Amino acid sequence: MNEKIHIFDSSLRDGAQGSGISYSLEDKIKITKQLDHLGIDYIEAGNPGSNLKDREYFDVINKYPFKNATLVAFGSTRRKDTDVVKDKNVQDLLSANTKAISIFGKSWDFHVKNVIMTTLEENIKMIYDTIKYLKSQGREVIYDAEHFFDGFKSNSTYALETLKAAESAGADCLVLCDTNGGTLSDDVYDITKQLLLNLTCDLGIHCHNDIGVGVASSLMAVKAGARHVQGTFLGIGERTGNANLSTIIPNLQIKMGYKCIEDKMMSELTPSARYIAEVSNITLDHSMPYVGVNAFAHKGGMHIDGIIKEKSSFEHIDPVKVGNDRKFLMSEVSGKNMVINMINKIDSSITKNSTETKEIVEILKSLENQGYQFEGAEASFELVIRKHLGLYKPFFSLEYYKIIEEEAGRKDGCTASAMIKVMVNGKSEITAAEGNGPVNAIDKAIRKALGLFYGKLKDFHLSDYKVRVLDGTNTAAKVRVLIESTNGEDYWTTVGVSTNIIEASVNALVDSIEYKLTKDIETREK
Amino acid sequence: MNEKIHIFDSSLRDGAQGSGISYSLEDKIKITKQLDHLGIDYIEAGNPGSNLKDREYFDVINKYPFKNATLVAFGSTRRKDTDVVKDKNVQDLLSANTKAISIFGKSWDFHVKNVIMTTLEENIKMIYDTIKYLKSQGREVIYDAEHFFDGFKSNSTYALETLKAAESAGADCLVLCDTNGGTLSDDVYDITKQLLLNLTCDLGIHCHNDIGVGVASSLMAVKAGARHVQGTFLGIGERTGNANLSTIIPNLQIKMGYKCIEDKMMSELTPSARYIAEVSNITLDHSMPYVGVNAFAHKGGMHIDGIIKEKSSFEHIDPVKVGNDRKFLMSEVSGKNMVINMINKIDSSITKNSTETKEIVEILKSLENQGYQFEGAEASFELVIRKHLGLYKPFFSLEYYKIIEEEAGRKDGCTASAMIKVMVNGKSEITAAEGNGPVNAIDKAIRKALGLFYGKLKDFHLSDYKVRVLDGTNTAAKVRVLIESTNGEDYWTTVGVSTNIIEASVNALVDSIEYKLTKDIETREK
Repeated sequence: MNEKIHIFDSSLRDGAQGSGISYSLEDKIKITKQLDHLGIDYIEAGNPGSNLKDREYFDVINKYPFKNATLVAFGSTRRKDTDVVKDKNVQDLLSANTKAISIFGKSWDFHVKNVIMTTLEENIKMIYDTIKYLKSQGREVIYDAEHFFDGFKSNSTYALETLKAAESAGADCLVLCDTNGGTLSDDVYDITKQLLLNLTCDLGIHCHNDIGVGVASSLMAVKAGARHVQGTFLGIGERTGNANLSTIIPNLQIKMGYKCIEDKMMSELTPSARYIAEVSNITLDHSMPYVGVNAFAHKGGMHIDGIIKEKSSFEHIDPVKVGNDRKFLMSEVSGKNMVINMINKIDSSITKNSTETKEIVEILKSLENQGYQFEGAEASFELVIRKHLGLYKPFFSLEYYKIIEEEAGRKDGCTASAMIKVMVNGKSEITAAEGNGPVNAIDKAIRKALGLFYGKLKDFHLSDYKVRVLDGTNTAAKVRVLIESTNGEDYWTTVGVSTNIIEASVNALVDSIEYKLTKDIETREK
Repeated sequence: MNEKIHIFDSSLRDGAQGSGISYSLEDKIKITKQLDHLGIDYIEAGNPGSNLKDREYFDVINKYPFKNATLVAFGSTRRKDTDVVKDKNVQDLLSANTKAISIFGKSWDFHVKNVIMTTLEENIKMIYDTIKYLKSQGREVIYDAEHFFDGFKSNSTYALETLKAAESAGADCLVLCDTNGGTLSDDVYDITKQLLLNLTCDLGIHCHNDIGVGVASSLMAVKAGARHVQGTFLGIGERTGNANLSTIIPNLQIKMGYKCIEDKMMSELTPSARYIAEVSNITLDHSMPYVGVNAFAHKGGMHIDGIIKEKSSFEHIDPVKVGNDRKFLMSEVSGKNMVINMINKIDSSITKNSTETKEIVEILKSLENQGYQFEGAEASFELVIRKHLGLYKPFFSLEYYKIIEEEAGRKDGCTASAMIKVMVNGKSEITAAEGNGPVNAIDKAIRKALGLFYGKLKDFHLSDYKVRVLDGTNTAAKVRVLIESTNGEDYWTTVGVSTNIIEASVNALVDSIEYKLTKDIETREK
C-alpha cells in the first residue's frame, strides 16, 4: 500500500489573506463541505481569537458530520510573560471546540528579538507551555514553526531547540513554514532531511510561492521525509499565494506514488477546484496545472497533430484522471484540426478537406480579426458552424432594441428601460421591460417576448459576465463580452464584440438563448 | 565574478502557442526591443518555415541594431528520407538570416516510431545532417531535444545517442526539453547531472509548467550544471505555460548568485513584465512572483504589523531590487494599519487612534459591504479619505445624465448619445455628445463640458476597463467596474459599483477625472 501523506488545507485561514478574497459564513461552510467530500485530512478554517465571524463559523460547522476531515482552529502561542491558562487567545482557541488546533511560534532568533521582543528562553517557554496545555485539554496539536528556514539559516541550533521544545511538549506534528516563501527547493530538502536525524515527531511542510517554487518545495520536503503538507486548494494566499494543493495532490499521488486522497476521488479534483473558485468569487487561472481550463489545451498545429496520433505526445497524463478535459484551441497556428473536431461533433461526414471546412476556417479567421475569440466561447463557435452548415433552425430574430437610461446619475434605484421587437416564425412581438441596467432590461424584454413562443427560457441564467477592452486607449475602444450561462447542470459560454458594450452584451445574450433553444430541441429529439 | 547563465526567451515562438495570445508584427517588434534592452541573451522569435507573418518579422527586425540579444529562428530537423540541402523548411530557416538557429529533433524512441514514423537510425541522421549543414552555413546552432526526459526514461541509451549525434555535428548547445512538462524537479537534476558525465557540449534546459514545477526544474538543471535556460518572460505558452523567466532570472541572480543580466537592469524586471503583458494583451497575474502587483502586498494585520517593525518579517527580498513596490491591502483582517498608511500620505498629523481614522475605517467597511474593493483602486481610496477629511476641493458635480441607445441592434455603426449637466463653481453647463457606446458618449460629454473650465483633461485616457459581476446569478446582479487611466507616465485606478453597469462606469469615470484634477493642482502647488 502506498504511504499516506496528510493534506492540510488552509484556504479558509491563510488563503483568506489573499488579495480580493472575502468569505462569508456561507462561503466558508460550502468550501469546508467540499474539501471534506474530496477527502482532505485537515481543514484549517479560522482564528477564533481574532475574528468574530470565525467563531460563528465554528459554532455552525461543529454540528456537521465530517466524513474525512479533522477541523482545525488556528492561533498563536501564549503571549510573552503570561500564564498560558490566562491567555485569552489560547482560551478562545479551545472554545472553538475543534478536535485539532494549530498554533504558530517563532523559530528565528532575529524575530524573537526584533518582532515579538522577548528573550530566546521565554520564546521556547511560550512554545512549550502552550502545546503542553493544549495537549492536556485533549487536543491534537499541530505546531507551525514560522519562518523556520530563515531561522535555521540564521541560527540552526536555536531553530532546532524550538522544535525540540514543541516535540517534548507533545506536539503531534511539527510543520516547517517557509513564511516569506524565499527558500529554494533544494534547501528545503536538505534542511528537512537534516531535521529528521534529530527529531522523532512527524514533520510537515508549509510553503509560499514567492519565488515560484511552492509546489516543488513541498514535494522535495516529502521526498526528504515530511508526511504532512499544508497549502491552499487553489494556491490563494497573501502576496504570491500558498503552495497549491490542487497541484500537489496529483503530483504526490500520480507522479510520486503516495496516497493523499482515495483514488476514486482523483477525478473530482477539477470539479472541486472550479466549485471552490466559484464560491471564492475568483477566476480560476486557466493555465493552472491539472485543473485549469487550458491545462490540457492544445493550440500548435504540430501538437494537435501529435495528440491525434498519440495522446502521450503532448500530454503528461490522461486529463480524465483528474476530471479535466482535452481541448483544442482555434488559432492561425493550429490550423484546421480543431475546427474539424468541432464540425464533426455536429456532422461527422465532413472531412478536413471538405469545402465547408475551408469556408468555416475563413469565417472564423475573419471573426477573429474583428476581435472575436472562440477559445472559451464554444457555444458561439458551435453556432457559427451550425449556421454555415445550414444546421441551425432560427428560433427568433431580434429586429431592434431601444434603451433609455433614466438619469441614473449618482442616486440609488436607477433603472433602464428597453423596448424590443422579435420575430418568431413570421410573427412579431414588440414588448418592453425595465431592469437594473440596460443589459438586464433587454434580457428581461427578450425573455418576455420569447416566452410567448417557447416555454423553457426561465430555466437558465447568467453565471458569469466578462468584459475585455480590445485596445484600451479610450472609451470608444472595441470590447469583447463573454457571457457564461447555466441551467444548473451545464455551462455554456458565448461571445459578442462591438465598440458598444451594450451591443456586444446583447449579441452574446442572443447567442446564449439561441444555443439553449438548439440544445433543448436536440435533447427532446434524442 | 559570478558564473554566466544564458537566458533564452521564446515568448514570441513557444509563448505564442498560449491560449489567447495573438501577436501582430508590431507587437513582436516591441517585445523584441524590450527583451534586448533588458539584456536577454537569445530571442527566439518565430518559425520562418511555417508562418508568413514570421518571415515579415525577420525582414524588419534584422535591420535593428541589437544591444545584447542574439536573434534565433526556430525550425525542425530535415524531414525523413530527404537530402538536407533540398529540405524546404531548412532553407526557410536559413533565409531568415539570423545569427543563431534552434532546431528540434526527437529523443524518444516511442515518438520516432509512432509520431514521425521512421527508424531510430534515420532519426539520428536527421539530427546529425541538419546540424552539420547549418553549422557549415556559419550559424550558431541550438539543438532542442524534444521530450528528452520522457525519452531518457524510456530508453536512456538511445536518448543519449541523439545528443551525441548533435554534439558531434557541432551543435553549440544541447537543450533538454521537458516538452510535456510532467517531469519532477529531482529527476531533471539527476538526469542533467548524469548527462554531463557523458557530454562536453553546453547543456540547456527547457521546461513547461504542467505539474507546477517549471521554475524549480529550471533551477535544478542549473544546479546540476546546465548553463542555458529557455522559457518565456511571463510564463505564457501552451497548456499551463512555459517556465517563467521573470521568476527564474531573479532566482538565479539574487538567490543563487549566478549572472543572467546586468545588475543594474534587475530593477527593470517589473516594468518589463508589465510592458510585455500590455503588448501581449494579457492581464499580468497579480500573484506572479517578483513582478506581480501583489508579489509584495500585505493583508494580514499581523503581517502588516511585522513589516512595519522589520521589513524582512514577511518579505524575502526588498521589492525595489526588482522594480516592484510594497503594498498594503485594505481588509477586515488587516485592520487600521494600511488605512493609516494612506491617510498619512495626505495628512501626516493623523494617528492610528484619531477619531478620523476610526470614521474612515467605518466608511470603507460600509463601502466594501456594498461591493466596493479598494485593493487596486487606490485613486478612489484616496478620494474617499480626502473627501472625509475635507481635503478635497470639489471640481465639479455631475447633476444628471440621460442616455439614449439608438437601435444598435445587430447592425454596424451603432451609436449612443448622452446628455449631461455639470456644475462648476456655481455655474452649470448642459451639453451632449455621441459615442461608440454609452460610456464613451458620457466620457466625451463630461470632458466637453469640463473643458470650458479646466484645460488639461485631454491629456489622459483610459488604459483598462474591467467589469466584475458580484453575484453572477442574473443580468440584474451588482457589478463592480474598475477603470485604469493614464497620462502616459502615471497610472491610476478608480472603482464604481452599481446594479447598472453604466452607472458603475460613470462613477469610476468621475472618480478618475476628480483624481486627475486633484493631482494636477498638487503638482502645480509644489
